This record gives sequence, structure tokens and C-alpha cells, in this order.
Amino acid sequence: MIDHPRPRDEADFDLQPDHHFMRLALQQAVAAFEQDEVPVGAVIVHEGRVIGAAHNQRETLSDPTAHAEMLAITQAAEARSDWRLNGCTLYVTLEPCPMCAGALVNSRIDRVVYGALDPKAGAVHSLFTIGSDPRLNHRFAITPGVMQADCGAILTEFFRIKRSMGKK
Amino acid sequence: MIDHPRPRDEADFDLQPDHHFMRLALQQAVAAFEQDEVPVGAVIVHEGRVIGAAHNQRETLSDPTAHAEMLAITQAAEARSDWRLNGCTLYVTLEPCPMCAGALVNSRIDRVVYGALDPKAGAVHSLFTIGSDPRLNHRFAITPGVMQADCGAILTEFFRIKRSMGKK
Repeated sequence: MIDHPRPRDEADFDLQPDHHFMRLALQQAVAAFEQDEVPVGAVIVHEGRVIGAAHNQRETLSDPTAHAEMLAITQAAEARSDWRLNGCTLYVTLEPCPMCAGALVNSRIDRVVYGALDPKAGAVHSLFTIGSDPRLNHRFAITPGVMQADCGAILTEFFRIKRSMGKK
Repeated sequence: MIDHPRPRDEADFDLQPDHHFMRLALQQAVAAFEQDEVPVGAVIVHEGRVIGAAHNQRETLSDPTAHAEMLAITQAAEARSDWRLNGCTLYVTLEPCPMCAGALVNSRIDRVVYGALDPKAGAVHSLFTIGSDPRLNHRFAITPGVMQADCGAILTEFFRIKRSMGKK
């Protein structure tokens, strides 16, 4: 069973804003799960306001670029009418892949907070350190492991069900 | 002055298909130049047929993910109604950045042909070798340097004009 994230709690928000926004990202991951998509969710926040919120839609859109982070970046840039996301923070339930880490560099975002590590494709700590590479023209702050147990559990459950159905 | 790519020549196509398709990518780069976008173009080919053709539209769309390769990938996947681009080749005038190289891995494309090297952000040879990394779950063949002089010249000219106008 997947526990749905708790609703917003103002007191909790004041004490732990990263947890608050990661819960919103996790709500997006739950929405992906319900659509039979690999359950990853992301939100982008600017000055305490959510300006992008999306979940993985690769299968639904038949688009290999439709990861949660990419869709949230495009939404946030549209909301600001500017491709530059300086001053923004992305919250995502899984460590970004090379595509998404590269997009975050290209967006000039300030900070990335993620939940579960991705040892197979993670590109900000696990396999590459895109995001902190001094050769690239932008770097961002990274906070790993926020609500990592919940963020990882929904992925584990998704792939357990897939395996039990014989779909890999 | 930027020389526009020559029109399709059937005899030339038979002898040098990579040059033929790179000329189409260069036509896309010219279209970007004319819209005051960094002039990079890309096409995706499946069994000799172009199923995606795009140029950089970062400024026009206010979207940091709107690189030529990304737009071409989304078009090609839509044309096939499948996010998997196995059997396809991407032609792009500039070495892909980490975002685009990662998207090409995610798309499971067979082959990438590029024109000019990008020593500042290139991610299939210059700074990273995404695309041939055995740790990732897909690798693709890479042919560098096809029409690199023409592909590089349009970029050099674009940035020369930008500098002369005092816009960096």
C-alpha cells in the first residue's frame, strides 16, 4: 500500500519547508503511479510559491523527454515568461537523470532537493556530478535524501507490481 | 554572410547520406539564426525518412529545455507514437549538451551524427561521454565532425554579431 502524502500543515511548513514541498512532489509521484507511470514527481518553488508541478508522463505522452523535472521546468519558465529559473528550487522524489540534471543546469536554477538516490542513472551524485561541475557554466546547491524512504517506497512498490505482472 | 545549405541532391544523397541529412539540420540552424536564436538545428531520420526537424527555440518559447535535439526527439516520438527511437539517427549541427545527450540515451536512439564540437558543454565527447557510458542502460553510435566547418561557422557568425551589438 502507498500512503498518500499528508495535506499541507502550516505549522509543519514553517518548521520544515523542504518536507512540505517534497510532500507536494510525492503527491505528484502518486498521481503518476495511478496512471501506470514510473512514479516520480517534481515541483518548482519561487519565493514560497509553487510555479511548476508535474509527474513523469513518458508513457502517456509517448515522449522520452517527459520526465517530471522537464515538465515542471517548462511550466515554471512559462509562469515566469523567462527561461532562466534563478531564485527557484526544484523538489523531486528521485535523483535527476543526466537529461534532467542537464536541463537544471541550462535553466540556471538555484537549488535542487531530491528524495531517493538513483544508483543506476542519477546524475547529481551517483553516476555524474552535473550540477556541481566547475566546467559547466552554472552550478546549483543540492540537498539529497529529503523524505527518501517515502520517495523510494513508491518506486519499489511500482516495480514490485510490474514484476509480479510479468512486465519488466 | 551565412551560406544557406544547398537543396537536396539525389546523387549526393546516395553517395553521402550523412551530408544530406546534416544539410537539412543546417537549414534548421539557419532558421534559428533568422529568429535571433543560437543557431543549432537537428533532424531525426528513420529508414531514410525525416520524422523530426527542429531548431533551438529557447528564447522564442522562453523554455530552457527547447534545444533543437529535444524538440526533434519529441516530434519523432510523436510521429512513431512511441517514446523509443530505436532504429533512428539524429543529425545535429553542434555536439549535444548534457541535457540533450541524456535525452538521447533515454530515447534509446541508435546513432547520433554531429557537426561542430562544443568544448564548453559538449556531453558525448568534450566534457562527458554520455552516449557511450557502460553504466547507463543504453548506448548509441556517434559520428562526429560531419560538415563541421559550416556548422561551426554559423555559430561563430552569430556570436560575432552579438558581441558587436554589445549583447553577450
